[in-house]
Amino acid sequence: MIPKGLQVLISELGKLPGIGPRSAERLALHLFLGGRESSARLGNALLHVHEAVSLCPVCGALCEFENGAVKCEICGDPSRRRDILCVVEKAVDVMPLDKSGAFRGQYHVLGGKLSPINGVGPEDLRIKELFDRVRNDGVQEVLMALGMDVESDATVYFIAKHLSELGVKVSRLAQGLPAGASLEFADGLTLGRAIENRLTVQ
Amino acid sequence: MIPKGLQVLISELGKLPGIGPRSAERLALHLFLGGRESSARLGNALLHVHEAVSLCPVCGALCEFENGAVKCEICGDPSRRRDILCVVEKAVDVMPLDKSGAFRGQYHVLGGKLSPINGVGPEDLRIKELFDRVRNDGVQEVLMALGMDVESDATVYFIAKHLSELGVKVSRLAQGLPAGASLEFADGLTLGRAIENRLTVQ
Repeated sequence: MIPKGLQVLISELGKLPGIGPRSAERLALHLFLGGRESSARLGNALLHVHEAVSLCPVCGALCEFENGAVKCEICGDPSRRRDILCVVEKAVDVMPLDKSGAFRGQYHVLGGKLSPINGVGPEDLRIKELFDRVRNDGVQEVLMALGMDVESDATVYFIAKHLSELGVKVSRLAQGLPAGASLEFADGLTLGRAIENRLTVQ
Repeated sequence: MIPKGLQVLISELGKLPGIGPRSAERLALHLFLGGRESSARLGNALLHVHEAVSLCPVCGALCEFENGAVKCEICGDPSRRRDILCVVEKAVDVMPLDKSGAFRGQYHVLGGKLSPINGVGPEDLRIKELFDRVRNDGVQEVLMALGMDVESDATVYFIAKHLSELGVKVSRLAQGLPAGASLEFADGLTLGRAIENRLTVQ
């Protein structure tokens, strides 16, 4: 009943996260009925993304890829501090941190977090590269911007232990209430951390 | 901060219905990090859909498009009845009706419904084509499978009035409780219609 070309499109759209079979059908029909031009725009964007975007071999963040050369906006920005390094789990974590405007140093993407249960050890992450950068680039502080779960805690602890030998300061994102939060909806653990790490006002 | 190639992909994905800027970002990153192959599969499906799919010039439903010729599975199926025509608003409405398996006749897509407020008159819809088919193809019954709103009612009334001159039976989808419904969640209008159109059991 559904033409083959449309069937292919529906099945490809259905592989995307958060898009079920019904949504995939709806999107495919929208794209088909929207005309040749709009579906070609999305199609070309998909075909060209790997020619224009790459991961920076130094920091691991997303960056432009032009004429076979990687152009990292962060590593190549002379106005950014080089003595502070922000360590994140995934390349996509760099964006929200940088959008906040509160950090103007360099980033380092680990590519995951330590997880013995899932068989992820230090050699599976970009930890050696991190130590090399700290050693060679005059890094004074490493800010661990990982999540607030057990595996992240273990990763922070492991890295901090090794960096202490190099005499480097290791910090971590603050834990507490999110911006705009009201107390009545905050969970106990968050409130506990917010009390523990309370800030002196005056 | 976000590489240009990715930005383009995010903006194209964000134009899809039900996909906001955050979802578009998430999908684009998923497609990029999923590797060249999977994004190329979706990209190619998008570029080829208009070469492989078309609307049938007779019934208006979606159909295969091969070597410059339209191959409609419904119009070309000799096992389907030709004396009953199911009229729907949009090409996509054919799919759920046909999946139900309860209708084995021909379809006719109107391309909209009468709406004086929006300036949609009979000449903007495929109504003339419908009358021509009824007149020339020996159609005995026209089943109006439009929605349950005022504009659909007006469209049904308009078409029925003209078809009565041709001595053709005009029917409409039944109104009542949907399958699996429980009374406590049914709205008053639906219940009212279900009572009005109650079926004799014995």
